[in-house]
Amino acid sequence: MSDIRTEILDANERYAAEFGDKGRLPMPPGRRFAVLTCMDARLDPAGFAGLSEGDAHVIRNAGGRASDDAIRSLVISYKLLGTREWFVIHHTDCGMETFDDRTMAGLLSSSLETASLEADGWHDHGSGPGCVDGAFCKWLTIEDREQAVIDDVRRIRNHPMVPSRIPVHGMIYDCAIGTLSDVAETG
Amino acid sequence: MSDIRTEILDANERYAAEFGDKGRLPMPPGRRFAVLTCMDARLDPAGFAGLSEGDAHVIRNAGGRASDDAIRSLVISYKLLGTREWFVIHHTDCGMETFDDRTMAGLLSSSLETASLEADGWHDHGSGPGCVDGAFCKWLTIEDREQAVIDDVRRIRNHPMVPSRIPVHGMIYDCAIGTLSDVAETG
Repeated sequence: MSDIRTEILDANERYAAEFGDKGRLPMPPGRRFAVLTCMDARLDPAGFAGLSEGDAHVIRNAGGRASDDAIRSLVISYKLLGTREWFVIHHTDCGMETFDDRTMAGLLSSSLETASLEADGWHDHGSGPGCVDGAFCKWLTIEDREQAVIDDVRRIRNHPMVPSRIPVHGMIYDCAIGTLSDVAETG
Repeated sequence: MSDIRTEILDANERYAAEFGDKGRLPMPPGRRFAVLTCMDARLDPAGFAGLSEGDAHVIRNAGGRASDDAIRSLVISYKLLGTREWFVIHHTDCGMETFDDRTMAGLLSSSLETASLEADGWHDHGSGPGCVDGAFCKWLTIEDREQAVIDDVRRIRNHPMVPSRIPVHGMIYDCAIGTLSDVAETG
């Protein structure tokens, strides 16, 4: 058994022992909103946005990007589970600002146990955010922090499966001081 | 300003006021692992898995599925930020067990402000998990809870961009009592 797995199960035992009446929470988010944010280890959305269990959907990926999969999740969040307002929250010092698709291509091609970017048909997914030249655009790296939030809010708002009346807010979390601030143009 | 937005900013002010030295945390996850889990509002991965800020990457989508985007995030987590062990954690009473792709197609086609499933080229993404008949398979719904974890662990392990030596564990979180348990066949 891995050490990490043991640590997780030990921590989980303590969590479950203090579970209280959380087992009675209904499936739909009580506060009827969803957050899309980055997988970054320093981000605790429950902490920085004040969420308790049962409050809100939290979607996370590398960069907090409005990928097709994030939009799949948001549409389910709205259509099946009744959220009515969405927040796109990127952050300072994001790993996605530190490389580009060519760097990643180099890393993958120079290393054992990894395959080329042409694998698995991913080269067909050419229309997402972060796309530079129509190829190798699936990593969804970030060149300009504010612009990436604006792009993602816009991609969600303009998506044909997203109802136009859902408010979509763009924010940036500051990893150095823990604050959220609005990205103005996403209003 | 929306009420929810105000509530989030108020909660964030309290969080930032107690931020302490978390601003000094480095970008790479300190405990070198990543969790892929569901967006469900009742799930607090930091709570149920014992994570502090800085510990681990957390990737979340509808169902905790091994979508292309989740695999994008995991590969970045490994290649750029050094995680060495991954956990796929689905849960009981998941919304993804309550509908199928045909239900979703009906919901979307019968409602104002939404477009057809043919929109935006999504009908081309036919090879993911949860695919029933080659069409409309992007919702990644769940028919059998244990099998979905097994399928997702297997998809990650067998992905050409995933190094074979990374341990990938499958678990199920019980929303009624707060416990994590292993999915045996993912060992």
